Amino acid sequence: MQTIKEYVESNKQRFLDELFELLRFPSVSADPKYKGDVSNTATFVAKKLTEAGADNVEVCQTAGHPIVYGEKFIDASLPTVLVYGHYDVQPADPIELWDTPPFEPTIRDGKIYARGAADDKGQFYMHVKAFEYMIETGTLACNVKFMIEGEEEIGSVNLGTFVRENKERLKADIIVISDTSMISLTQPSIETGLRGLSYIEVEVLGPNRDLHSGVYGGAVANPATVLAKLIASLHDENNHIAIPGFYDDVVELSAAEREALNKAPFDIEAYKQDLGVDEVWGEAGYSTIERTGIRPTLEVNGLWGGYIGEGAKTVLPSKAEAKISMRLVPNQNSQRITELFVKHFEAIAPPYVKVTVRPHHGGEPVVTPTSGIAYKAAEKALEDTFGIAPIPTRGGGSIPIVALFEEVLGLKTVLLGFGLNSDNLHSPNEKYGIENYVKGIETIPLFHKYYAELAKEEK
Amino acid sequence: MQTIKEYVESNKQRFLDELFELLRFPSVSADPKYKGDVSNTATFVAKKLTEAGADNVEVCQTAGHPIVYGEKFIDASLPTVLVYGHYDVQPADPIELWDTPPFEPTIRDGKIYARGAADDKGQFYMHVKAFEYMIETGTLACNVKFMIEGEEEIGSVNLGTFVRENKERLKADIIVISDTSMISLTQPSIETGLRGLSYIEVEVLGPNRDLHSGVYGGAVANPATVLAKLIASLHDENNHIAIPGFYDDVVELSAAEREALNKAPFDIEAYKQDLGVDEVWGEAGYSTIERTGIRPTLEVNGLWGGYIGEGAKTVLPSKAEAKISMRLVPNQNSQRITELFVKHFEAIAPPYVKVTVRPHHGGEPVVTPTSGIAYKAAEKALEDTFGIAPIPTRGGGSIPIVALFEEVLGLKTVLLGFGLNSDNLHSPNEKYGIENYVKGIETIPLFHKYYAELAKEEK
Repeated sequence: MQTIKEYVESNKQRFLDELFELLRFPSVSADPKYKGDVSNTATFVAKKLTEAGADNVEVCQTAGHPIVYGEKFIDASLPTVLVYGHYDVQPADPIELWDTPPFEPTIRDGKIYARGAADDKGQFYMHVKAFEYMIETGTLACNVKFMIEGEEEIGSVNLGTFVRENKERLKADIIVISDTSMISLTQPSIETGLRGLSYIEVEVLGPNRDLHSGVYGGAVANPATVLAKLIASLHDENNHIAIPGFYDDVVELSAAEREALNKAPFDIEAYKQDLGVDEVWGEAGYSTIERTGIRPTLEVNGLWGGYIGEGAKTVLPSKAEAKISMRLVPNQNSQRITELFVKHFEAIAPPYVKVTVRPHHGGEPVVTPTSGIAYKAAEKALEDTFGIAPIPTRGGGSIPIVALFEEVLGLKTVLLGFGLNSDNLHSPNEKYGIENYVKGIETIPLFHKYYAELAKEEK
Repeated sequence: MQTIKEYVESNKQRFLDELFELLRFPSVSADPKYKGDVSNTATFVAKKLTEAGADNVEVCQTAGHPIVYGEKFIDASLPTVLVYGHYDVQPADPIELWDTPPFEPTIRDGKIYARGAADDKGQFYMHVKAFEYMIETGTLACNVKFMIEGEEEIGSVNLGTFVRENKERLKADIIVISDTSMISLTQPSIETGLRGLSYIEVEVLGPNRDLHSGVYGGAVANPATVLAKLIASLHDENNHIAIPGFYDDVVELSAAEREALNKAPFDIEAYKQDLGVDEVWGEAGYSTIERTGIRPTLEVNGLWGGYIGEGAKTVLPSKAEAKISMRLVPNQNSQRITELFVKHFEAIAPPYVKVTVRPHHGGEPVVTPTSGIAYKAAEKALEDTFGIAPIPTRGGGSIPIVALFEEVLGLKTVLLGFGLNSDNLHSPNEKYGIENYVKGIETIPLFHKYYAELAKEEK
């Protein structure tokens, strides 16, 4: 029987070709103009699941973009692994900063450059190929279910309904998600926490029309200036978030926990050099690892107002807008934080403008257990593949649906991510290492094997 | 002989048709894609000057957009009036807010809606038609020169060179410009001051690429947030401009001067209602009239950074930018203010970002005399047309070239403006009243007549 390493070696080109085909779909869920492409991507994913050996494959329609389901049931005595992933991607803007087209994958220096290469097409597709291997070689150790959605980048708006309506079909023992990062190829790691999210749009409306800045400037509040003042006030001089009650539910980690967290290999000079910044920034009293892992944050994701074209226009704009999102840590609740933000932002709005706050989407923070057999199985699988034991980390990102899975399905998740922080997620020139892709495919069958063994032991 | 009133009455439709033809040219000087249209507009203006009776008409090429020159010399013993205007217009953005297309003039409620209707096509063209009348009826009281440029909205970048190189040709006794506003059709007024301008673009650069706001948020400075903080810091809690040295050269008006200024009819409730704001805003200690007339201001004309498309993108942007302009009052110098801004903005930039400040263009503030015969002639002409004496006001806008005319040509200017502040200059739905257009054409020959008479008396 071929080992997984041998199987990957002899099928590597095909595995890359198939991923490239998947990456060529511009499945941008946020932009209505790609609706057809998103749908075609779902059809492609379904076809590939069927070809790999999945049964009952279905492109499940929702009120938004479809969810692809597939499964392989082999034995009721074996545990069931539910693989979650997403085939939708972030918008490619600013498109002009891509060195090669975002939807024409290109290999440079051993990395696959394309929107979605790491987030999440390259990562969920590893599971499809590892599944193919286990089917081909008759080594499937667990029952497997796939749920690959098309709305993760817009807040999984219809997944909640789908999960609630398909509890029976989604019954499993563990959820596995590959949509996070590890420290490096020489130091694997497993994320054990994800931050929640509250995404908001704000609008500051001043005069009812754009005005001549000479005729009216200085006498009528400028919404761009007011928006700047409001945004500036959201962090205090220690870079704490200045929304009353914002930190109320944050659980402080113990000194020992923080010490453990800060033991992860981290080179601040290399970090700054990679980003091209002279100094890092952040909440006083916390390290960079803590700032992105265990502390809530507030970021402006976009802002605009007035004339933004070429040349000069002496206009006092009628309005200015911003997209603002907050990352939440365990015990914070996205709805409560959204309410606090709305209340605060409306309260600080001065009387000479009108402020509108539109909550966009949210998700709950989550901590995944490091004590259960799923984490142990992941640990052993990664150690086998990389030759070194993985360490637990706290990820800064959000997969809001993880909290929902626990609530509705009662299932824990293991975050078996193979990306790197330097993969340019959500940025131009997103990439995913070929070695990460290959090592991921090699690790997954080991996870299934160890998980089945540990589950048997536990019985 | 036909009076000017009779002449306008019998030629009104043609005067409107010709203006409409002029307004249909999208002569947007700021945007390179309209270069051909700007050039065609110059040719059209030259043709109309020739048809009206001007001699030596020339489309003078410059390093940028052309300047149209024309003249009528009748007698060396008569004074010479140099008419300045501009045929270029502001960009039409945001185009979606126009009720009718910006370059297809439309009459509604007695107003001509089009980009450039008031600023400045509708206003300079009054001089062409008044000139036609004086030629037709042999009533030209002064020698006349026209200089109509195509770069006023981008800072008259090449006019300085032209004026310096054509001192002889531009010799005159007074400059007349119709590119400002009056209080209303029932209360004419003459602007006696114009503010200077310093227009600047700033860029705040953070990380060398857009980042995932979950992975990096909270640990790397967000340029949008930093830009907001920098902009917020440019006004203090009294809305004074917080740039060291900014007010050093501002000459405070005497209590008597301020009292006189505040006597102009002004209805704050109507002002707020027109703009749709609940409260006005501005520098503490000054009235709305003072804030726009005698005080310098700083306005954000545009700002942008990050994701500004539909939906949500959780990005920490690499950079954020803004266009900022300052209006200057007499005795301030645009170059010095620009230097102060650059120095200050660079000084307050925190070490975790890189700030670039790009000066755009500037112009000097100016006060026009109310004591000379040009002002008196304008006063008498307006009183004849409107039946009520005009009052002097301080305009908030800038015509940077006025200071240059004084410096290079040694000429004073009279600002014979017929617009209204509500004309939506630089905004969507720019308009100009047909009555303003007609009354302007009627007033101009009277100005020439009185100016010639007063000049003769003065000799």
